[in-house]
Amino acid sequence: MLTQTESQQRVSRLQAKLQTKGVQAALLILPIDVYYFAGTRQNAVLWIPADGLPMLLVRKSLSRAREESPITDIRPFPPSKEFASVFNEDQLSIGMTFDAVPVQQHSFYTRALPGRSFVDISMIVREVMSVKSPFELEQQKYSASKLASVFAEVPQFLKAGMRELDLSAEMEYRLRKAGHEGYIRMRAFNQELFFGLAVSSGGVNSGFFDGPVTGTGLSSVSPHGASYDEIQVSQPILMDFVGVFNGYIADMTRMFVIGTLDPELQRAFDVALTIQEMVRQAMKPGTICEELFLAAASMAEQAGLGSCFMGMPGEQAKFVGHGVGLELDQLPVLAKGFAVTLQANQVIAVEPKFVIPGKGAIGIENTFIVTDEGGLRLSDFPDEIVFLDA
Amino acid sequence: MLTQTESQQRVSRLQAKLQTKGVQAALLILPIDVYYFAGTRQNAVLWIPADGLPMLLVRKSLSRAREESPITDIRPFPPSKEFASVFNEDQLSIGMTFDAVPVQQHSFYTRALPGRSFVDISMIVREVMSVKSPFELEQQKYSASKLASVFAEVPQFLKAGMRELDLSAEMEYRLRKAGHEGYIRMRAFNQELFFGLAVSSGGVNSGFFDGPVTGTGLSSVSPHGASYDEIQVSQPILMDFVGVFNGYIADMTRMFVIGTLDPELQRAFDVALTIQEMVRQAMKPGTICEELFLAAASMAEQAGLGSCFMGMPGEQAKFVGHGVGLELDQLPVLAKGFAVTLQANQVIAVEPKFVIPGKGAIGIENTFIVTDEGGLRLSDFPDEIVFLDA
Repeated sequence: MLTQTESQQRVSRLQAKLQTKGVQAALLILPIDVYYFAGTRQNAVLWIPADGLPMLLVRKSLSRAREESPITDIRPFPPSKEFASVFNEDQLSIGMTFDAVPVQQHSFYTRALPGRSFVDISMIVREVMSVKSPFELEQQKYSASKLASVFAEVPQFLKAGMRELDLSAEMEYRLRKAGHEGYIRMRAFNQELFFGLAVSSGGVNSGFFDGPVTGTGLSSVSPHGASYDEIQVSQPILMDFVGVFNGYIADMTRMFVIGTLDPELQRAFDVALTIQEMVRQAMKPGTICEELFLAAASMAEQAGLGSCFMGMPGEQAKFVGHGVGLELDQLPVLAKGFAVTLQANQVIAVEPKFVIPGKGAIGIENTFIVTDEGGLRLSDFPDEIVFLDA
Repeated sequence: MLTQTESQQRVSRLQAKLQTKGVQAALLILPIDVYYFAGTRQNAVLWIPADGLPMLLVRKSLSRAREESPITDIRPFPPSKEFASVFNEDQLSIGMTFDAVPVQQHSFYTRALPGRSFVDISMIVREVMSVKSPFELEQQKYSASKLASVFAEVPQFLKAGMRELDLSAEMEYRLRKAGHEGYIRMRAFNQELFFGLAVSSGGVNSGFFDGPVTGTGLSSVSPHGASYDEIQVSQPILMDFVGVFNGYIADMTRMFVIGTLDPELQRAFDVALTIQEMVRQAMKPGTICEELFLAAASMAEQAGLGSCFMGMPGEQAKFVGHGVGLELDQLPVLAKGFAVTLQANQVIAVEPKFVIPGKGAIGIENTFIVTDEGGLRLSDFPDEIVFLDA
C-alpha cells in the first residue's frame, strides 16, 4: 500500500517540475501513472494541480479506489455535462503524458475542458518515476530476490531435448507461484513482452523487440521469447526474465549450458562481464548516460566483437542499460543520444550481450541502484555460466 | 502464415470502407492492425491507399518482416527527410486508429506528412476485423479446442486448501505447454489482463476490469485475477481463461465445486445457461446486438437476479457478450447502446454471469460464431458445473 506521506512526496516532486515548466496541472490517465501517485490502479483519472491537492475521479471501482488510495479527494467520475465544473477555471495549461495517451482520449478531455491548452508532460512524469524512494528500492530488492530464487532452481528442470517453450513454462510456473503478477508493463507504444526469454542458439532470431535478443516465439503474431525449438547439448541457453512483485520490476539474465561451451562464446561472455563491471563502477550521480553506452561499445569493439554487440549484426540495439521500476522501460536509458546525467536512486538493468551468428546469444544482466559508490546490485546471485552435465 | 490471397481480401474490405467514407489512405501503426492486414507483427507501419497496393515500412526487423509478410512492397522505414516522398501526394485524407494511437505518434506522422488531414478510422478497422474468414474460424476453433483440453484437466489439480494463485498457475502452465502465446491483446486503453481468472468466493472483488468478475489479484497494482486466498470446500470456483494460439483467441468460463453448492448459486447458474441458450439461438445475421443484452437482462430480472447480473450490485457490466479474434475486446459487443446488427462469421464470447453478495460469482462462457442457424459453438466442452469430492 502506498502511504499518504509517500504519495504526497511524489506529488510534490511532480508539482515542482510542473511549476518550472509553467504547466498549471497534470491530468494523468495512464493506469500506471495514476498508480504511482495515487496508489490505486482502478479505472480512474488523477488531477494534480501545480499547487494544491490532487483529485482522483474514479470510473470503476470507486469503492476499491477508496480502500487503496491515500488521496483525500476521491470522487466518482463526473457525467459529461458536469465534468468541467469540478476543475479550477484558472488552470489553463494542462499536461498529459502524450507518449501513452491515445488520440481519442486526448480529444475527449480537450472537448470536456474547453478553453484549455494541453501539453506533453511525458518526460516530466517519467523523470519523477525514475528516481526511487527507499520504499521502492525495498520493493525492487524483494522482486530481485524472488527472481533470483527461481533462477537458482533452473538446474533442477533444464534438460536436453526439452523445447524452449517447456523451459520457459517451468520458469514462469515457479515465478507465478512465488507471487509474480504476470502482466509486465512497458511504456513504449509498440512493445509487448510475456515474462521474458528462454532462448537456445536454435531460437535466436531477429525481431521487433527493442532489446539485444528476441527469440523466435511461437508464431509470427507473437514473434518473441521461447520457440518450439529443442534445446541441445553444448548450446548457450540464455534466460532473460522479468520479476514483477507488487508491481515492481527486477530484470535479470543468466546463461546455462548442458555440456561444454564454444570458446568464442565463453570469451564473449567474459567481455560482457568486463563491460558490466565498467558500467557498474561508473553508475554514480553525474555520470552521463550516453558515455556509458559509448564506453561499452568501445570495449566490445576492442575485443573484436563490435558487430555483434547488443544484437544481430545490422539489428543492434543502441543501449546497454534501461531504467526499471513499475515499468520495464523507464528512464534513464544508457543509450546513444541520451546525454543526461544519472541521479542517485535511479534503478537500471545493465545487459551487455552479444549475438554471434551461427553460435547463439550470450551475456549477462543485473539490476543496479545508482549510488555515490557506483552501481549497487539488487541481488548478489552469481554471474557465472551454469554448466550442467550432458 | 497469412496467405497473399487472404491479405488481399482483408485489404480490399478495408479499401471499400475507406472509399465509402472518403478517406484516401489508411496509415496503420498499431502492431495488431499491421499484423491483421500484413501478416507480420514486426515493428512496422502499413500504408493502405483506398485504391492501389499497400506498402509496409519496417523499423525492425526488416528481414523477418520480409519472411513473414505476403505484402509485395516492403521497404525499410525511411529517414525523416525522405519520409514524405515515399507517399503519393494526392492522398490528402489519411485515416489512423485514434482509439489506440498515442498523441506523440499522431504528432510525428502529422509533421512527417504535412498538408494532409488525419481522421479516425478505428471503427472501420475494427468492423473489418470483426468478420472472420474461414482460415480465422479454423484458428479460433483450434484455440478453443486447446483451451477446452486444459479445462478438462482441472479436476486433476484442483484441491481444497490451495491458493487461487496455485490454481491459476497450474492452468497457466498447462496452457503454455500446449502452445498458448501468453500475451493477451486488448484494444481498450486502460485494460490489462493476464491469462484469466481463477476466483473462489473469497477472491471475488470489485475492480477496474470491464467484465462481470474481477478477482482480488495479488496487489493493488495488479488488482485482477487470482489472489492468495485459499480455496475452500463448497465454494463456487469460477475459472475464466483466454486461449491465445497463433494469435487467435477463444474465451471460456467453467464452474468447479469441491463438495456441494448453495442452492441459490445453482439456480443462478441454471438461469445463466438459459440466458446463454436464448442468446445462442438469436445469434443470426441481422439481430440487433443491444436487444440481446436487453433480453438477457430482462431474463435475469424476471428470475429475481437483476441486481447481481454481470457484476457486483452497483458495478454491473452493461454487456453479455464481446467479439473475440486477434484481440479479446473486438466488435461487436452485445451491449446497451450498441444498436448495430450482427454479421455472419463474427465471433462472440457470450458470458452471462452473476455475482451474489456473500456467496460468490457464478456463470458460463462460450465462444460462438454468428451463423444463419444461430450461434455455432467453437468447442463442445460440456457446460455443467464440475463437482469434486471434498
